[in-house]
Amino acid sequence: MDMERAIAVTAFLLVLLLASSQQPADAGVRRRPPTLARHYASLLRRHQQQQRGEASAAAAGGGAAAAVVPSPAVQYETRYYTQRLDHFNAAPGSAATFQQRYLVNGTFWRGATAPIFLYAGNEGDVELFTNNTGLMWEAAPRFGALLVFVEHRYYGESMPFGGARAAAFRDADAKGYLTVTQALADYAALVLSLKANLSAPAAPVVLFGGSYGGMLAAWMRLKYPHIVMGAVASSAPILSFYGLVDPYAFYDRMTHDFKNESQHCYHVLRKSWHVLDAALATSEGSARLKRTFKMCNGSGVVDIPSLLESAVVYAAMTDYPTPSGFLTPLPAYPVREMCRAIDRSGSGSGGGGTDDDDDTLYRVRAAMEVYYNHTGAAACFRGEEDDDPYGMYDGWDWQACTEMVLMTYGLSNDSVLQPPWTFNLTDVLDSCRNDTGVPPRPFWLETQFGGFDIENVLRKSASNIIFFNGLRDPWSTGGVLKSISDSIIALVEPKGSHHVDLRFSSDEDPDWLKQVRAKETRIIARWLKQYYSDEGIAA
Amino acid sequence: MDMERAIAVTAFLLVLLLASSQQPADAGVRRRPPTLARHYASLLRRHQQQQRGEASAAAAGGGAAAAVVPSPAVQYETRYYTQRLDHFNAAPGSAATFQQRYLVNGTFWRGATAPIFLYAGNEGDVELFTNNTGLMWEAAPRFGALLVFVEHRYYGESMPFGGARAAAFRDADAKGYLTVTQALADYAALVLSLKANLSAPAAPVVLFGGSYGGMLAAWMRLKYPHIVMGAVASSAPILSFYGLVDPYAFYDRMTHDFKNESQHCYHVLRKSWHVLDAALATSEGSARLKRTFKMCNGSGVVDIPSLLESAVVYAAMTDYPTPSGFLTPLPAYPVREMCRAIDRSGSGSGGGGTDDDDDTLYRVRAAMEVYYNHTGAAACFRGEEDDDPYGMYDGWDWQACTEMVLMTYGLSNDSVLQPPWTFNLTDVLDSCRNDTGVPPRPFWLETQFGGFDIENVLRKSASNIIFFNGLRDPWSTGGVLKSISDSIIALVEPKGSHHVDLRFSSDEDPDWLKQVRAKETRIIARWLKQYYSDEGIAA
Repeated sequence: MDMERAIAVTAFLLVLLLASSQQPADAGVRRRPPTLARHYASLLRRHQQQQRGEASAAAAGGGAAAAVVPSPAVQYETRYYTQRLDHFNAAPGSAATFQQRYLVNGTFWRGATAPIFLYAGNEGDVELFTNNTGLMWEAAPRFGALLVFVEHRYYGESMPFGGARAAAFRDADAKGYLTVTQALADYAALVLSLKANLSAPAAPVVLFGGSYGGMLAAWMRLKYPHIVMGAVASSAPILSFYGLVDPYAFYDRMTHDFKNESQHCYHVLRKSWHVLDAALATSEGSARLKRTFKMCNGSGVVDIPSLLESAVVYAAMTDYPTPSGFLTPLPAYPVREMCRAIDRSGSGSGGGGTDDDDDTLYRVRAAMEVYYNHTGAAACFRGEEDDDPYGMYDGWDWQACTEMVLMTYGLSNDSVLQPPWTFNLTDVLDSCRNDTGVPPRPFWLETQFGGFDIENVLRKSASNIIFFNGLRDPWSTGGVLKSISDSIIALVEPKGSHHVDLRFSSDEDPDWLKQVRAKETRIIARWLKQYYSDEGIAA
Repeated sequence: MDMERAIAVTAFLLVLLLASSQQPADAGVRRRPPTLARHYASLLRRHQQQQRGEASAAAAGGGAAAAVVPSPAVQYETRYYTQRLDHFNAAPGSAATFQQRYLVNGTFWRGATAPIFLYAGNEGDVELFTNNTGLMWEAAPRFGALLVFVEHRYYGESMPFGGARAAAFRDADAKGYLTVTQALADYAALVLSLKANLSAPAAPVVLFGGSYGGMLAAWMRLKYPHIVMGAVASSAPILSFYGLVDPYAFYDRMTHDFKNESQHCYHVLRKSWHVLDAALATSEGSARLKRTFKMCNGSGVVDIPSLLESAVVYAAMTDYPTPSGFLTPLPAYPVREMCRAIDRSGSGSGGGGTDDDDDTLYRVRAAMEVYYNHTGAAACFRGEEDDDPYGMYDGWDWQACTEMVLMTYGLSNDSVLQPPWTFNLTDVLDSCRNDTGVPPRPFWLETQFGGFDIENVLRKSASNIIFFNGLRDPWSTGGVLKSISDSIIALVEPKGSHHVDLRFSSDEDPDWLKQVRAKETRIIARWLKQYYSDEGIAA
């Protein structure tokens, strides 16, 4: 299998590659590291498409711009902080600055010694995370907290070198400043400036983050305990690095999610990749796919495998217990729903292939309908696009191949994704080097933040971190799943998915989710109580 | 007062400035931040001069090269580690490397799980610190420790850009990589590589450092607790930053050292600056100085004030309880001895000025004899030179004006150094900007490492640090003087001076010093015991 292509950096490139070499042996080429950036981007794009579709149906104007639609509860002021380009170098050029965006809501703030709830922006437009982190909005009134959401450098509007994306990403020299350590130092500098401007030097800062943002939150508490008093690190795979995690664990967990739902579902999906590849390899097969899967104009049947893979991977990550209807309509427990669709569907009228293959194709089409067209409003499947309207891909692709070399690539023999891929670090690194032009540093973040022997290290040298993980989320395989001390607490929820705790609550939330959020809130309250006591502040 | 010149970067420049503007009002121009680098360089230079003098007297060859003379007990192997130029930037140029020197002694090492005692190299040739850190050499046999001394980037032989000093210091862009955070990351990467090569992944690393090296040791334990298990931070003024320390405290403590020894001594010294400046302002005065102070060829009476100031400052810093005879002969308690010389001397034959002024000059000359010519071997005073044979000034001058903007400048009205200087941050920063060409960052290291509310922060998020401070050392005014927890322990010795605990022991050591070292050894033993217990290693 061609690993270089398996982690190829853009969907566009992937589509090109697939189109130019459609042998079954290249099926692995579909695979690329799943990231929340891609997930969010995909949700947003579909939301936009859906808006356009609905708009044309209703003869009203649909928005073509990549705007984030705010939740009704979410209101904020947009501000900019003049941030240093390079915190760790003293050369004249390092002192260049850029405008870092952050969003503030002071509605609930009870003043100088009341907490600041800070979201550690991750790989995307900060408005996206602002609108998705309900836990902060819902907890702020109780704590009288100021809400601040800070955007990660090189995402959204926070572009060095003048503010234009093209300039920030023009070459590897310009992209060089996109590193985790720089991002954390940004947050440190911004918090100190903010507190000074608010005349609130003693205000305790509680940091929140999900996914990569959760990693940043945990790492920030480790490195800057004098700046953030505690961290809620949700679905933060800080152990997904080489030597710390089984590189097959990610897809094994995903496989388990489907197998656990239904053995039949798992077998159908597992077989489907071969069926799809075989069909794509012949003109009759392609014709059959055209009849079975209705593709939108501009998309071809060649897109089907990657669409199916995305549906499988992201359904497992976001296997939320309630319909996630804010940006895109997904049913509750999409893995279950996809498997139900697979189990109850089957070939209708003959598609021209073997009955068995037809049956498989109809079943996976039904699964894709669940994921891509839950409301039934979409008339066709649209291939994944490369337009990157939210400016997420460029940055994450760079990070994932320089420092954030997360070990999620191995595919076991019995993986729900096929064919298997024997993990090989050298291939991963070679591929990354080809993509970025710079040597990847798979050990750097372990050097910087640790991970080996994490329990003993953090027990003695850290405090006030919540690690939430939902075990249905494949990323939980790189999470901290055992409490380390009475203030470094692992909350592990067997039914939970990717940072489900951070989402806005809903009436249909199951009890376990309500309890997780209540626990988090209680722990934060305890931290704050201790902080005020330590500082001699009347709370 | 001209602050720019007060912190001017080279002795050479200072001499030129003094020569060109000898008004009494410029007396403050003598003043520059005291640093261990300058102290060591000065000691080394005098040692070398002494060797040359003795050599010519004995008609034997004296070494002209700037070699560090090793202590008999100190033997090591010199190795080099291929170190990354910039740890915090992913651009292609950041991946450039340089050869970082480190010295190893494995004589005492008991193998894979035995401790590694690591010295965090500071602003100078690492051989200097290797030869001065007796505590490590003397404790190693008991603990079966491997001894490693790592050189700080941009000092000694550890020069980026090909290894030549001239290239590393050619301009501000080249010097930009000389920062604290890069140095700590160097040590982290080197330790991990070393442990991998030794097949000793579980070996606990205990980090030692004095002065700036002590700051590095403490900061490294804070930032890399997964890499160093504990730190002995001796005379580490981690609180000598703006807003954390009284900027007059440093010289006030020095003043107290002399005043406490003898009120008369203090008054003579305090008056002497005016007497010297007044003498230098007239040709008769200069002639009088020439008769009183025998200056070597190439040195002039204009050098006297800065020589006296160095003697006063460094005697207070290194007010050791035993003769420090390794590099240069200093008596035990040099402050006491200088004051004794001042108190018992006085004008002999009339020098041509007022009796009172003559008296002052004879007394300070006697003090200088104690500091510069304890053995009586030197026939004349030599002005401070700018040859920087140990490559310390360039690096430290850069650091002290970019990140390490230590707040030691203020001179109170009753300071033993005169005239007073009202502390003014803006002037300090302007002067630094002029010197380096880059904006100083006086708040950056506080942002990075904290300091404000340090007790509450470290109690919850750190462990295993010894902060030793001797209260005679002016640097102790920026030290951590109160224990924070049962493993973050302040050892404060009223009679102690600058990292006296790290020095080789001697039979004449006073009991308090023996006890300090015994305490440190006991604490390290306790850390190790806990470590082996936590890790399940049979010690």
